[in-house]
Amino acid sequence: MRAYIEDLKKHVGSEVEIRGWIYNRRVKGKIAFVLVRDGSGVVQCVGVRGEIGDERFAICDKAPQESSVVVSGVVRADERSPGGVELGIRDIRVLAEAAPNYPIQIQDVVPEVGFLMQNRHLWLRSRKQAALLRIRAEVIRGIQEFFDSRGFMRVDSPIITPAACEGTTNLFEINYFDEKAYLTQSGQLYAEAAAMALGRVYCFGPTFRAEKSKTRKHLTEFWMVEPEVAFLELDGLMELAEQFVSHLVQRCLERRKEELKVLERDTTKLEKVAPPFHRMHYNDAVEKIRKEGLEFPWGEDLGAPHEEAVTKGFDKPVMVHRYPAAVKAFYMQPDPQDAKHALCVDVLAPEGYGEIIGGSQRIHDFALLERRIEEHKLPRSAFEWYLDLRKYGAVPHSGFGLGVERTVAWIAGTEHIRECIPFPRMLYKIYP
Amino acid sequence: MRAYIEDLKKHVGSEVEIRGWIYNRRVKGKIAFVLVRDGSGVVQCVGVRGEIGDERFAICDKAPQESSVVVSGVVRADERSPGGVELGIRDIRVLAEAAPNYPIQIQDVVPEVGFLMQNRHLWLRSRKQAALLRIRAEVIRGIQEFFDSRGFMRVDSPIITPAACEGTTNLFEINYFDEKAYLTQSGQLYAEAAAMALGRVYCFGPTFRAEKSKTRKHLTEFWMVEPEVAFLELDGLMELAEQFVSHLVQRCLERRKEELKVLERDTTKLEKVAPPFHRMHYNDAVEKIRKEGLEFPWGEDLGAPHEEAVTKGFDKPVMVHRYPAAVKAFYMQPDPQDAKHALCVDVLAPEGYGEIIGGSQRIHDFALLERRIEEHKLPRSAFEWYLDLRKYGAVPHSGFGLGVERTVAWIAGTEHIRECIPFPRMLYKIYP
Repeated sequence: MRAYIEDLKKHVGSEVEIRGWIYNRRVKGKIAFVLVRDGSGVVQCVGVRGEIGDERFAICDKAPQESSVVVSGVVRADERSPGGVELGIRDIRVLAEAAPNYPIQIQDVVPEVGFLMQNRHLWLRSRKQAALLRIRAEVIRGIQEFFDSRGFMRVDSPIITPAACEGTTNLFEINYFDEKAYLTQSGQLYAEAAAMALGRVYCFGPTFRAEKSKTRKHLTEFWMVEPEVAFLELDGLMELAEQFVSHLVQRCLERRKEELKVLERDTTKLEKVAPPFHRMHYNDAVEKIRKEGLEFPWGEDLGAPHEEAVTKGFDKPVMVHRYPAAVKAFYMQPDPQDAKHALCVDVLAPEGYGEIIGGSQRIHDFALLERRIEEHKLPRSAFEWYLDLRKYGAVPHSGFGLGVERTVAWIAGTEHIRECIPFPRMLYKIYP
Repeated sequence: MRAYIEDLKKHVGSEVEIRGWIYNRRVKGKIAFVLVRDGSGVVQCVGVRGEIGDERFAICDKAPQESSVVVSGVVRADERSPGGVELGIRDIRVLAEAAPNYPIQIQDVVPEVGFLMQNRHLWLRSRKQAALLRIRAEVIRGIQEFFDSRGFMRVDSPIITPAACEGTTNLFEINYFDEKAYLTQSGQLYAEAAAMALGRVYCFGPTFRAEKSKTRKHLTEFWMVEPEVAFLELDGLMELAEQFVSHLVQRCLERRKEELKVLERDTTKLEKVAPPFHRMHYNDAVEKIRKEGLEFPWGEDLGAPHEEAVTKGFDKPVMVHRYPAAVKAFYMQPDPQDAKHALCVDVLAPEGYGEIIGGSQRIHDFALLERRIEEHKLPRSAFEWYLDLRKYGAVPHSGFGLGVERTVAWIAGTEHIRECIPFPRMLYKIYP
């Protein structure tokens, strides 16, 4: 019977057939220990020369790493093994022998990261990278489940857009049948239109920034989920954000225990992530940054070191709200208490991971929005439809964007977000 | 208590507050019937002048369509109403009065479709368009649930790609930091790499074709789900496809009854969609096309009229397999029975909807794939990584792509796929 490795524990005592690839091996005299992976897991297959014969033993001993194989054997409980089982080989067959020079040999010296990125299509087969992909898939499932179970409708926003949401710098331009168009930076404006139609919506898809930065936190192509809710104000948005982030973390803790272990993540830190998160006014954030010994002029946006200073001492994300309007996007509703500030919030992950969410209440007043579009020198004609949303049935509304890769990096405890997306696009890098 | 309209049936006899927009009205003497929509549904609110006073009655009578309102009242069971309830108004307040010239007035004459497309951001608020968006969201939930519950991992493929999967015609070119790059046509090649790492995977995202066609079946930006499975051959792929398509249809029948009614869909036709689907060899399809009175030379790909001829008489999708290799993509495994044919399958929806799935078994042999890349004059260097998948652990593997908008159009019974995506991109059209 064909079985996947992740299901082997259900078949202890039975003979099964698995299909996969040789991942690693160790031979001790007449016994071969072959690690086989099939995408669902890795299992140790044990072959005894006297039982399986010379030909099969030679396969166990010599077939190059990544050769594809079909293995039959009896599942045995084994507490020391990762999945709690091992397979006693009865038959092993090579489907296709791998070339002997597999670039990412399992060895003591870890290859240089540039080399691994160039071989990303093969690197994905390694244990840690596969674990990261599984955590990413779990985060995406969590995103959908959270919103789908709370009455939100998924509404996909377009990728090809005629205008820039936050100005035209950092945009990839495309030739659209001889018209100028851009790759979207955010689906928000479209999500706003959809929220006026369906009440509670979210869009989820790839977004693009042509930034010439090479930091470990930047990708030119990354995935973002953006909920948008009619009749929601900043306080409600912060509640939604802390529930959402907690849901994602707790879901991964429940369902991706094995993967977090492979990645050597200290999960005690994640266990604490539950509402409420600490709320900190921008002015208080400035004070804390200075108390931590950094110089920081009031009025600027936070950089990575400032975010780290703000979250220091907190074991949960911190929600910094009411940034100065001047450093934020044109569409943000001003604080009625003090119009210098915007009704916005950034959620900063602890342990130095920094911003994972940016959100705000949006301007619902037609005249104010019109003025802002003018002040920001945005092309009015491209925003006529966006202004329409205030002409016909304006309501207070709010939304945020959560970056998938940054969230995965934090949950997985991985420094580089380029490992949190299957095929990263970075400055000058689009292969494979 | 604040309530969403979709939940009102749980609150019969109680007073609730709803927040939404005026959708339509009818006044009969001293009684006003105001239809309010809040994105979750539409409810009739009944205001009696003598009970609510002149000021509130004037709002019911005069506030322009799409004005945002907060309405309090008592929920009453009413069998004749769409949701089974109506609201007896106690209080009604206007949050923002809409401009009086709402472009998409509810009237007997339906505006011209070009005008509606230009006002797509408002058109989404109409009942039919909202129903289409909800069916789309349900199809997407169904996609994820189907694969997630069957051991598939979601692996996002990149949007910005260095090379064309099926040749460089019909590609949108972008300037990627002064390098030439393209918007992806399909995530398949990347999904193949991921399948060798994780066994069973799917990618789901936007794909792009710069086709200069203006038919009702073409979009330049559309969403596609592409499962890819290691150790799967054509027969297994066809089983997966028929189960998958049936799952999507049955899920919409169960959960989007109301929306299908709004769209006046004949659901008896959808109820029949269950495995097995009829399998038809390309040669037999050619024969059927000719029997239906069309001229059709052996060896060509099927156009819309041919697909219609093939599905005539079937009330379920038809799976046409083994097309001539010459009209299909370079990566398809040849039929061992007759190498003129490829081990591929297209799933054609009935009722004239045509192709919703295209899939195949992929070439796993290194030398053959190498030859095909050469024959198709594809740039070898861009495909080195793809060849690597055959160098290291080649296995038979298969996958398909399902177009979301075409599937939604069929399930919803809508002629134009441009209404099956929130913000369609078509030839010369990217606004709003």
